[in-house]
Parts: sequence; structure tokens; C-alpha cells
Amino acid sequence: MSKNALIKGKPVADKISESLIEEIAKSNINPKLSIIRVGEKPDDLSYERGALNRCTKIGIEVEVVVLDENVSQDEYISKLHSLNEDESVDGILCFRPLPKHLDENIIKYEISVKKDVDSFNPLNLAKVVENDQTGFAPCTPTAVVEILKHYGVELKGKNITVVGRSLVVGKPVSMLLLNENATVTICHSKTEDLQDVCRKADIVVAAIGKAKMLDESYVGDGAVVVDVGINVDDEGNLCGDVDTERVLDKVSMITPVPGGVGSVTTSILAKHVLKAYRLKY
Amino acid sequence: MSKNALIKGKPVADKISESLIEEIAKSNINPKLSIIRVGEKPDDLSYERGALNRCTKIGIEVEVVVLDENVSQDEYISKLHSLNEDESVDGILCFRPLPKHLDENIIKYEISVKKDVDSFNPLNLAKVVENDQTGFAPCTPTAVVEILKHYGVELKGKNITVVGRSLVVGKPVSMLLLNENATVTICHSKTEDLQDVCRKADIVVAAIGKAKMLDESYVGDGAVVVDVGINVDDEGNLCGDVDTERVLDKVSMITPVPGGVGSVTTSILAKHVLKAYRLKY
Repeated sequence: MSKNALIKGKPVADKISESLIEEIAKSNINPKLSIIRVGEKPDDLSYERGALNRCTKIGIEVEVVVLDENVSQDEYISKLHSLNEDESVDGILCFRPLPKHLDENIIKYEISVKKDVDSFNPLNLAKVVENDQTGFAPCTPTAVVEILKHYGVELKGKNITVVGRSLVVGKPVSMLLLNENATVTICHSKTEDLQDVCRKADIVVAAIGKAKMLDESYVGDGAVVVDVGINVDDEGNLCGDVDTERVLDKVSMITPVPGGVGSVTTSILAKHVLKAYRLKY
Repeated sequence: MSKNALIKGKPVADKISESLIEEIAKSNINPKLSIIRVGEKPDDLSYERGALNRCTKIGIEVEVVVLDENVSQDEYISKLHSLNEDESVDGILCFRPLPKHLDENIIKYEISVKKDVDSFNPLNLAKVVENDQTGFAPCTPTAVVEILKHYGVELKGKNITVVGRSLVVGKPVSMLLLNENATVTICHSKTEDLQDVCRKADIVVAAIGKAKMLDESYVGDGAVVVDVGINVDDEGNLCGDVDTERVLDKVSMITPVPGGVGSVTTSILAKHVLKAYRLKY
């Protein structure tokens, strides 16, 4: 075990990318992603660089629509509608969270379901629950499943504990894992004896957003751990929801932070853009 | 324990009804439910009688639109649209499953989200997942939660095992229980050691559709069991998914079949019609 237990995202991302490159080259097509960014938030800019880099290498055109940080809701929606209607645009990614003066609960219904490559529209959330393959699951939860599959982790019938019930990770990843025939337990801040529930699981998916919260008392021997958290620890370093060093000797596999789930999401995004392209025809 | 453990649906239904009667009388309003039935399926007719009976007593008008069993999809949708647009209609219930020549995956998107009192439209499924109170959860899963609350069963932090992952019961009831801060484990036919997973739960919700499948080996001492199944046993009698007689001495509470969850659904339906009426204004 020890350091060998670290399962990195890069090989997963590379494999997905290679297959997309091949498919796009073979079909001689030119899928396009439009990103809507409001203002210059560092998180958005960082993800944007990664997405641009990844998509361009794969052969997907990326257009970034930058809106002023004071853009009105009507202007935002009008831009979104124009991208919905633009036949040259296959996928649309709206950076979230949106600034507070823009109402996500209104805007989310306005993005075309067929171009909604990161599952902003609730109809795509419903399709995840329905296991309807014509929809788009959000990229991060999809990356979790892809990593587990890539490293040959059996999901069918396994006990998976998901820690966190957010709409962006916890709930959709639970549904995706259920669609893979896992037995899924969804935990959260109100769960009694969280350690016990986690320790009994074959696989733990941590998505709570608390730096290094899960230590060795939360994992069973030989468990597989997927760490979706992206936090900053006391020393200012990036870290996950799991205290990786303290669980390394106990687990059979664990994704690192950084270098784990986060490095796979842009490949999933690219895959979804290609899927959106195919859905058009 | 023994027979005292039986928790019936009727008191729950009666309490909901009484509060609806009071509210409707006080406000001097006249909510209306339209039911669309295709053909004369016995299940539909039976539910229709119950709904008519319940709603009429409460002061909700019910109109049943009966369509020929050979109705075309276009005709069905056109009728649905006319009810969507009819301002005198507050709630719409489409009996399902629809005959095979009608495509539910198309029709479900056509019912007005605001009148969709039994959560046919996937947007209402999404609202259940989002814990968005402006939506409608399906009536049966809602009845499960209402029964547990009525009998004072604590849900927050409790381990609840849901057996079954259907879109009509298993998945939505899991989300509703999660919204009540329970820790929810979703099991199904591929779950390894289902008995063990069930035995460890504080509360078991059985929704698999297999007559008397869960016996005493599936329930822990003092557990609460909600039986959503409606099956016919070898002797032709109605029964649930739980072998009630064999678990009675072990559980602290269990809903009977018949007389349990099924007797609460029409009250939930009525409650949703009133909610739909309120949403209009």
C-alpha cells in the first residue's frame, strides 16, 4: 500500500482525451464550447485555463464570453439565449456560483438542456436520477465514477458511503453510483456516528468541503477513497477532505488532492461537448 | 410490541384531511383536480374512487377526463395542454403507467410543472432532489414521510435503509428522507447482504414489489418499518413487501398492507391540489 495507493487523475484524463482526439480526428468534426464568465474570479480563471488547454488539445473550439461583473440578469439571460440558438455552439458552460445579484434559480432554467454540458439545468439533474443517458451529469461527479472505473474498482453491489449531500457533488454522485448498481449511503453533517458509517464502506467518496476532516478513524482496512474536496490547510496548501497521509497505510487506493478528481473534470467537460455535438444530429 | 406495533394510515389521512377541510372552509376557495384516465384499468378505477371520495369530502372538486384506450399521443397531449391552460383547474393527475402506445418519456414533459400534483414532470423530480419547496413530490413517497412524522418517529440523523430504487418510490423517498436530515442507504436487487444492511437500520422503507420478501432476518430489534409494497400473496390476498406477521414481535412500529401507506396517498394528493391552488396566486 503506502504511496502505491495513490491513484492519480492524470492517466484517467489522458485516456479520455486520447479517445476524444481519435474520435474527433476520425469524424473530421469541429465541436465548440462556449463559456460564460462574469468578472474575473480567480477560481473561474483557473478552471478556464484548464478547460481551454484541454479542449484545444482535443480539437474542441472554446469561446469565452466575458460579461462585466455588474451585468444585469436580463443581459445574462439574453446572452445565454443567443448561445442556445447559435448552431455553431454545441456546449455551454456557465461558471458558478454566479455573482449574488444574478438569480441562479431563474437562470438555471434558461440554458438549453441539450447544450448544458455541466448539468446546470434541473432537467439534467432529473435525467441523472432517471438514469436517462440523453442528459448531462455534472462533470465532477462523473469524474469520480470514471476514476473508479479506470482503476478497476468494482462498483456493482459494493457499499459506497458518500459524505456530503450538495447538489453539485453529493447528490448527483450518489445517483450515478446507484446507476452503477452500488449500494449507496448518503451522509452529511447530521449523520450520527459518521466514522462508523464510513468505516464500514468498501468505497468512501468525500465531498464535504472541510480540510482533512476524514482521518484513519473514518476508513476501513483496504477501502477505496475518492477525495472530492478542494480546501486550503492551515499552512496555506491545497488539500482535500481527507487527511491523506494518515489514511495512506490503511486504504487500498486513494485519489490525491491536488492531482486527483480535479484533474479529470475538464476531460469530462470535453467528452460532454462531443456528446452535445452528437445530440444535435 | 406485537399488534400494538401496527401503525395505520387512516389516522394520518384523517388528520391531513381535517386540516385541509378547515383551511378550505376558512378561505372560502374551491380548488379543482383534473384526472386523466385512459381506458378502464381496475387499478386506475380503484384509485380514482378513493381520490374522488377523499377530495369531495375535503371540498376539492374532481373532474375525470376519460380518454379512449386507443387515444393517440397527440390527442392525449392536446387534452393535457388544455388542462394546463384551463384556469379553473389547479391540479392534474395523469394515471400511470400509460398504455404502451403512449410515450411517457415525451408526455411527462408536457404537464404544467405548477399543476403536476403527483410529480410526473421531471422538473418536479429535480425539485425534490433540490429540496425546492415550490415543487411537488410524488404522493406515495410523501405519504411515507408523513406517516413517520405523524407517529413521532425521529428522522434526523437516523439510519434509514430504503429497499428499492424506482423513480416512483425508492429514489424520491430517499431524497425526501435526506431532506429530513436522515442518513439514507439505497438498496436494490444488486445489493450484497441486503439482510445485514436492513438489520442495521433504525428505519426500513420497503419498496421492492416482492410479496413478503422481508422477513424477521431483515429487521433489527425495535426498528420502524414502512411497507410501501402492494402485492398479492399465494392465497390471493393483498400483502406488502414485508412478511408482517413474522416481523411484528421484533419491530417497534410497522405499517400494515392494506391500511398503511396506501390509505394516506389520496390525502397527500388533496394537499397538493390545495398547494397548487395557492401557487397560482
